[in-house]
Amino acid sequence: MIKISILGGSGYTGIELLRILSRHHDVKITAVTSRQYKCERLSKVFPHLEGFVDSIFIDPANSKSIKDADIVFCCLPHKSAMEFIPEIIKKGKRVIDLSADFRLKDSKVYEAWYEKHTAKNLLKKAVYGLPEIYRAEIKDAQLVANPGCYPTSAILGLMPLIKSKLIDNTTIIIDSKSGVSGAGREAKLETSFVEANEGFKAYKIGEHRHTPEIEQCLSQIAGKDIKVSFSPHLLPVNRGILSTMYATMKTQNSKLKTQNIIASYKKYYRNEPFIRIMHEGVLPNISQVRGSNFCDIGIKVDERTNRVVVVSVIDNLIKGASGQAVQNMNIMCGLNEETGLLSPPLFP
Amino acid sequence: MIKISILGGSGYTGIELLRILSRHHDVKITAVTSRQYKCERLSKVFPHLEGFVDSIFIDPANSKSIKDADIVFCCLPHKSAMEFIPEIIKKGKRVIDLSADFRLKDSKVYEAWYEKHTAKNLLKKAVYGLPEIYRAEIKDAQLVANPGCYPTSAILGLMPLIKSKLIDNTTIIIDSKSGVSGAGREAKLETSFVEANEGFKAYKIGEHRHTPEIEQCLSQIAGKDIKVSFSPHLLPVNRGILSTMYATMKTQNSKLKTQNIIASYKKYYRNEPFIRIMHEGVLPNISQVRGSNFCDIGIKVDERTNRVVVVSVIDNLIKGASGQAVQNMNIMCGLNEETGLLSPPLFP
Amino acid sequence: MIKISILGGSGYTGIELLRILSRHHDVKITAVTSRQYKCERLSKVFPHLEGFVDSIFIDPANSKSIKDADIVFCCLPHKSAMEFIPEIIKKGKRVIDLSADFRLKDSKVYEAWYEKHTAKNLLKKAVYGLPEIYRAEIKDAQLVANPGCYPTSAILGLMPLIKSKLIDNTTIIIDSKSGVSGAGREAKLETSFVEANEGFKAYKIGEHRHTPEIEQCLSQIAGKDIKVSFSPHLLPVNRGILSTMYATMKTQNSKLKTQNIIASYKKYYRNEPFIRIMHEGVLPNISQVRGSNFCDIGIKVDERTNRVVVVSVIDNLIKGASGQAVQNMNIMCGLNEETGLLSPPLFP
Amino acid sequence: MIKISILGGSGYTGIELLRILSRHHDVKITAVTSRQYKCERLSKVFPHLEGFVDSIFIDPANSKSIKDADIVFCCLPHKSAMEFIPEIIKKGKRVIDLSADFRLKDSKVYEAWYEKHTAKNLLKKAVYGLPEIYRAEIKDAQLVANPGCYPTSAILGLMPLIKSKLIDNTTIIIDSKSGVSGAGREAKLETSFVEANEGFKAYKIGEHRHTPEIEQCLSQIAGKDIKVSFSPHLLPVNRGILSTMYATMKTQNSKLKTQNIIASYKKYYRNEPFIRIMHEGVLPNISQVRGSNFCDIGIKVDERTNRVVVVSVIDNLIKGASGQAVQNMNIMCGLNEETGLLSPPLFP
Repeated sequence: MIKISILGGSGYTGIELLRILSRHHDVKITAVTSRQYKCERLSKVFPHLEGFVDSIFIDPANSKSIKDADIVFCCLPHKSAMEFIPEIIKKGKRVIDLSADFRLKDSKVYEAWYEKHTAKNLLKKAVYGLPEIYRAEIKDAQLVANPGCYPTSAILGLMPLIKSKLIDNTTIIIDSKSGVSGAGREAKLETSFVEANEGFKAYKIGEHRHTPEIEQCLSQIAGKDIKVSFSPHLLPVNRGILSTMYATMKTQNSKLKTQNIIASYKKYYRNEPFIRIMHEGVLPNISQVRGSNFCDIGIKVDERTNRVVVVSVIDNLIKGASGQAVQNMNIMCGLNEETGLLSPPLFP
Repeated sequence: MIKISILGGSGYTGIELLRILSRHHDVKITAVTSRQYKCERLSKVFPHLEGFVDSIFIDPANSKSIKDADIVFCCLPHKSAMEFIPEIIKKGKRVIDLSADFRLKDSKVYEAWYEKHTAKNLLKKAVYGLPEIYRAEIKDAQLVANPGCYPTSAILGLMPLIKSKLIDNTTIIIDSKSGVSGAGREAKLETSFVEANEGFKAYKIGEHRHTPEIEQCLSQIAGKDIKVSFSPHLLPVNRGILSTMYATMKTQNSKLKTQNIIASYKKYYRNEPFIRIMHEGVLPNISQVRGSNFCDIGIKVDERTNRVVVVSVIDNLIKGASGQAVQNMNIMCGLNEETGLLSPPLFP
Repeated sequence: MIKISILGGSGYTGIELLRILSRHHDVKITAVTSRQYKCERLSKVFPHLEGFVDSIFIDPANSKSIKDADIVFCCLPHKSAMEFIPEIIKKGKRVIDLSADFRLKDSKVYEAWYEKHTAKNLLKKAVYGLPEIYRAEIKDAQLVANPGCYPTSAILGLMPLIKSKLIDNTTIIIDSKSGVSGAGREAKLETSFVEANEGFKAYKIGEHRHTPEIEQCLSQIAGKDIKVSFSPHLLPVNRGILSTMYATMKTQNSKLKTQNIIASYKKYYRNEPFIRIMHEGVLPNISQVRGSNFCDIGIKVDERTNRVVVVSVIDNLIKGASGQAVQNMNIMCGLNEETGLLSPPLFP
Repeated sequence: MIKISILGGSGYTGIELLRILSRHHDVKITAVTSRQYKCERLSKVFPHLEGFVDSIFIDPANSKSIKDADIVFCCLPHKSAMEFIPEIIKKGKRVIDLSADFRLKDSKVYEAWYEKHTAKNLLKKAVYGLPEIYRAEIKDAQLVANPGCYPTSAILGLMPLIKSKLIDNTTIIIDSKSGVSGAGREAKLETSFVEANEGFKAYKIGEHRHTPEIEQCLSQIAGKDIKVSFSPHLLPVNRGILSTMYATMKTQNSKLKTQNIIASYKKYYRNEPFIRIMHEGVLPNISQVRGSNFCDIGIKVDERTNRVVVVSVIDNLIKGASGQAVQNMNIMCGLNEETGLLSPPLFP
């Protein structure tokens, strides 16, 4: 039985971890912290979990919060994460951090997009937790930096194209649309029902903090620097990210058709349990991955403009956060990677 | 391994049966029929099920549709159900019928609210599939009439009150609100996105066909005739029914408070795996049962008017249809009643 | 030109007043206050109003806020309203108050449901601003207490029934469902998109502060005390209230049919510009009044249970708040009552 | 008084024309046709219009449908439009056609993307009804081809950029997201509530029929052929199109900043009554134009990638269809262009 602590368990990623882990046969949740709800029953705060988790939120400052843990899931916001994690690492615990604090390898980049980094010495130790690329490193990692939701959708969608060297890497545009749960559980005017419902907007075009994370990973895949245009949008649904990605084919590849690219994606991802490639003529809908750890990918070559367009969908709270974190835990603990994650999406 | 046929598997109740049964360890789905999609792959029609079900819709007229089955789930609309089922019963198969055709014991009542009944001889044989009342009869039934979605929410909410003889049975009002999936998967103008979204309406007040089903069951519980006012409403969400139910307390009970009624509900349902009673001061939200087989119930005594108000919530496609059908199957087959049904709700 | 001040103009009722008054030909908005946004351009805070209102929010404490006004619309929350209004009344201004502070005639009732009343001397002066009842009094009022959204929908739906003495007044149940804008514009967890979307719940059953307001008005109509059961629900739409109202017919009226009641409603409201009675067999949808000042009413007699069921719909921000306030202003100023309010609903 | 016929008045563009024209002081609606609802009262089919339009749908085959009309609005689907319109033109009526049939100047292009064109002789006569470009030609046109919804949002967003020659015209990508009303009012599975709600998908990438319409117009502006990548998406809201548009700056313009481009847009559109340019740092939301004829445009230069990103929003049923049609009518009839169109958006 793997013993689990969840730090910051009252946000949406915490809720999803609790939901997934409560039916994972190899783990036992020994502590869940929340500053806001400390000393309250979890099932009072989250009545949907009544009968599944039966403990009490403890104060994150309480040393019991991690004492018994084999694995600590850190669902704290960035900045808080890098304050708490060094101590936990020192105690020899293994950590899966869902914040952004250990995703960027270069602290200067982190500091350009976020703020001062206070635990730089851990950056080398941290492994970027995208199993489809770094599975081997994750296995032995003590600190896994769980990827951002947008980067997961973008990187999984673009990786085979970049690996195959079919496209001009200077032409990549990522137009992403995220459900509102991506903005977290804190009450804010712009994510209140009345403001977001029946609305749709772009935000932080060219400025979103997930941009360097996407670029770092794509550059590593390509073996050289890649810059992308990244435009996030706020979508009036609870869950789901759809990324529409554009790239121009290199001239010598201009004869390639949709079916060729699909075939290469299918081959590239043939052993991946959570990637599903759509048939020609089919584009994925976020509703077909809701509640699951899948990333579904559709491809279309626009022959008129010599561009390839890739559409990927994930559930931002699962493959984009808590499901991927459990996938990483399974890998770290030598379990079957699919354990606890293989239920069908909830449609409709 | 219990072998399963699903007749009419391309509607929302069929989709949910496929989702639930695809991870039920004791069953094997041997046939799924659809007139509309016959010869198409299930996973093409329902891309969310890719990797979970890997068969082809067959014609309902094809004899293979039920040949190997131990249990036949009939998801056909009423009228079609009573055309197909007599033959299946004759072949000795056990049937769980999700239509209305075998729910009403009195064919005259059926004919007053629906149309001519063409399989009256099976009405006696049929058991009303609400495990919380008829568990013993379901165990040995050959034909289970799976309850309607509204009746499930209403009966579970009112049963302890009626059993306890606390209320004046002539004062029962049931004001129910259902998500749009309750209207089925056929394209209709009134359930199109643009017409239903940002809208809300009552329909068929005092005339809905679930009225006699509710009354039959409540009358049986009470041991005498009960008539109710039943008003359904169309709610702009995918899933969920919330029923707000009103009854006046008998004069001699006018001292009873919310906590007393809650205590009696908790006692009444203490052994029920899928009923959760809310604490005093808490009323349930449909979102807290989404994707699960739970019925959550909240209670409030309005002392000013001497009325008790009960609020019940279910996922109309699960406890209101396919989940309850699987619960019935588990009982019929001597399995643990919770098998395949015990995952936490998907919130948010 | 009537000069208008709006106090507390940055909530949803303020936004709607600005929208309606910006195309009202007989008024000029001379000041709009907001503590939160003081010194900011209105059109920066509300980009939809760009080109329609071109002023700057001023501090509510600033004496200019009401100096030039003929009519002051007070959109402050209750408690704040009764702090500001006495001074304004003293200065001889006419006030339309959208808060609850001057709706209840009996300060004891106010204090039982709200808190200490600090301007009791104004209660007699205040006229309840429901034109369909108090048109004559509104005309000359200095202080109009604009009705609550739920009470507007309930009272307009029940008034003809009560006047006609057809029903047993002890049997009235009001089951209301309101869009999320009814909860105001302040960011709160329970009205955040993710929590409210795909959800539905009842709240404050038997305890909502609009209960005494409904009872006060119905009692006055009946000429004797009426108590009602009132159950509000939170509906995942931006705008709209639908109230489903139940009452038992007196025995001697048990022969009355739907068409009789409809005829009596049509007669009762024949001169009302903003009430529309639905034909027999038709029940109204909140979407058919969105963006308008209408209250649409449908009626159904449930002959099996001898109950009459009335369904009323309004746009909670218009007939339930700002539209009704403008209607009151029109009456107070001797204008045509429909001025500025007669545009068709925005459907879909 | 301008006399108006509306052919095909029961779809969403018809509904919007009726709503707008019912309060337009210079017109009188003399006939509205509908095959589906012929002989039914308009206000029965559309209860929101009760009190505003009081006529009966007539059969489109009925000669009265256009007899008295000065202006005929044709809301028929493409193909039907080119069957009906030649006869109407022959009778000397002026026509505003909301279908695609007369938008493409080159019948070969039409036939490549749609089907055989059966009224080619009218193509020269037809004026593309985008007032921001063709105001002068619209004034005297007998046949106005009202632009598509997506093209309106794209062309208005890109026109100043192309005119200014700042961008490399081979790099234009248009990623558009449309509310569900854009798919029309016919009941279809994929636009049913349950399928579209909580979903989001791309469709017809590189293949949508609005592509050649966008290219024709942009090419004419540029004075040379332009090809674009156009990707539409289905957004779970009733109304609104948001287009996110990407183009790479020519090298010599790489010093230009967001504020420079915004200034050039403001200048370009300085006399346009329905275009609003957002301030630097602000991007528009579809909710801020709902119910209005505005096109709001936000601009962001992504200096890291040397791309300019333009975001435009419209209400697809108004500036994207019926509002623009009325704007065209106003121009054709010598009225103030804003007549009947200048009400503020309905937010929230």
